[in-house]
Amino acid sequence: MTTNAQFRLAARPVGMPQPSDWQYTEEPVPAVGEGQFLVKVTYLSLDPAMRGWMNASRSYLPPVEIGAVMRAGGVGEVVESRHPGFAVGDSVHGLFGVQTHVISDGTGVFKIDTSLAPAPVFLSTLGSTGFTAYFGLLDIGKPQPGQTVVVSAAAGAVGSITGQIAKIKGCKAIGIAGGPDKCRFLVDELGFDAAIDYKAGDVRKQLRELAPDGVDVYFDNVGGEILDDVLACIARGARVVISGAVSQYNATTPMRGPSNYMQLLVQRASMTGFLVFDYAKRYPEAAAELAGWLREGRLTSREHVVEGGIEKFPEALLSLFDGANTGKLVLAL
Amino acid sequence: MTTNAQFRLAARPVGMPQPSDWQYTEEPVPAVGEGQFLVKVTYLSLDPAMRGWMNASRSYLPPVEIGAVMRAGGVGEVVESRHPGFAVGDSVHGLFGVQTHVISDGTGVFKIDTSLAPAPVFLSTLGSTGFTAYFGLLDIGKPQPGQTVVVSAAAGAVGSITGQIAKIKGCKAIGIAGGPDKCRFLVDELGFDAAIDYKAGDVRKQLRELAPDGVDVYFDNVGGEILDDVLACIARGARVVISGAVSQYNATTPMRGPSNYMQLLVQRASMTGFLVFDYAKRYPEAAAELAGWLREGRLTSREHVVEGGIEKFPEALLSLFDGANTGKLVLAL
Repeated sequence: MTTNAQFRLAARPVGMPQPSDWQYTEEPVPAVGEGQFLVKVTYLSLDPAMRGWMNASRSYLPPVEIGAVMRAGGVGEVVESRHPGFAVGDSVHGLFGVQTHVISDGTGVFKIDTSLAPAPVFLSTLGSTGFTAYFGLLDIGKPQPGQTVVVSAAAGAVGSITGQIAKIKGCKAIGIAGGPDKCRFLVDELGFDAAIDYKAGDVRKQLRELAPDGVDVYFDNVGGEILDDVLACIARGARVVISGAVSQYNATTPMRGPSNYMQLLVQRASMTGFLVFDYAKRYPEAAAELAGWLREGRLTSREHVVEGGIEKFPEALLSLFDGANTGKLVLAL
Repeated sequence: MTTNAQFRLAARPVGMPQPSDWQYTEEPVPAVGEGQFLVKVTYLSLDPAMRGWMNASRSYLPPVEIGAVMRAGGVGEVVESRHPGFAVGDSVHGLFGVQTHVISDGTGVFKIDTSLAPAPVFLSTLGSTGFTAYFGLLDIGKPQPGQTVVVSAAAGAVGSITGQIAKIKGCKAIGIAGGPDKCRFLVDELGFDAAIDYKAGDVRKQLRELAPDGVDVYFDNVGGEILDDVLACIARGARVVISGAVSQYNATTPMRGPSNYMQLLVQRASMTGFLVFDYAKRYPEAAAELAGWLREGRLTSREHVVEGGIEKFPEALLSLFDGANTGKLVLAL
């Protein structure tokens, strides 16, 4: 009998998630029913948004209930099937949760073609991470060739793709990241025009120098002080894309709002939030274009794979918040 | 010889402007040169934005310099002219400054037809106040019939017009204002569907009851806590129009940013700033439509005229910030 190992939410964290907020459980995988199939999960997607799902508050998805398997995206392989659309050996993507096995009726599960790219890439550039960068930048940010695009958490999963798409679209791409290694990675390996190390000095001052005509598009993944720094430097008619606010997700004090938001008025600018799920019908369009750029070598997909199996989940998740990862953080099961 | 009485900026205020921040001066009006005309100012427009112009910081207009006549819009009458386009007796509108007389070459000065409406109305509904409501609501807010529009400082100059336009466009209009008299004024005299007295209780709770499906358009004049309250109640795809932030203009602590701004992401909503000056070419369109609504009795223009002459300027300006005025505050000279 196969055993399914899982991490369940044991308590709602206050601040940074603690080991005691998780419950590790094992249970036998039940029999696969008619119209179902069994997936052995191979890689889990670790995303800052997961921290929000652990809170009780109303958001764009219901909170993960106490005692429930933690929500997570993943890729895996079909190991048993009584479903006409999925065969043993198929590689699949879905919201499988933090567990080693899952029985599915196919709802929300998609086959992926791992001859195009390794499985973890379907959690990064060819998955919702890449689609977030693609639709957020192009549909909300609407960058024009020659304009200046700034992205925060630029060495992270979404940020690293966003900046590269900005370059492909003929923009000047400036990344904001923590530490000299990440900044070098952005410029030397991903082709960003410049990178600002927020740990090293005055972001606003550096931004004024690097973008003397102002920032046309700001793709924000972090919120907090950096959002205020960039707002102080926006150009007339700028578009601020709100993709995340990772600096605030573990805050135990009230969320810090952008005190420079009146620059939106001074500069006749907009700040717009979006959720990639709303673009689900257009995922094939994004996937095709992103895959083309990958194939042509115009886009580099960087995954940060944590080995060690599901036991590493609580610890691996935390590395999203201490800036340890470069590129997309995935956990190999 | 005619004497021009003026208020000049003597010091940059910290917090609420003090009498010592102003210098009252009198000087003889110089001779009117060829191509010039002399305006006797009859009414001055008092606007919350004037507080911002007193600060040294970079904004959409340069700061008023120390020692300069305070910037202000006004209407007046041409009393002497050597300009072919302006005749004695013409009523005119312009950025005349806080003074009783001004010599002009016609730049930025427009003739107004006081047979259509009394002169102060050209500082309110038929002036930039009305145009702010018109373009901000219709072009940025894009309300659809049946949607819920919320406006703050709703009994103020811009807010009172905004809510009425929302009604004309088939929306549900909810005003937020301070005190039962203003709330009654909104509902009984201006036809708002509902009014929330922010001084009387929990704005968020009342808004949830009055707009159970969420707020589609929020026209914000105040910022601060009320902006956060409304952000907590926005509907999917809402448009937040940033027209002002009067609650913050005299703050001596750093500007309060909207800590609920991540609702923009949760609700796929936008927050957009604008300046009415950008619509200058379309002022005639707005003026024609607003004048039509006035004529048809569908729009009520309310002016709060302070009598007593230019000496009352420092005191009258302050009433913008203590909520004393209902409708457009103007100073009769």
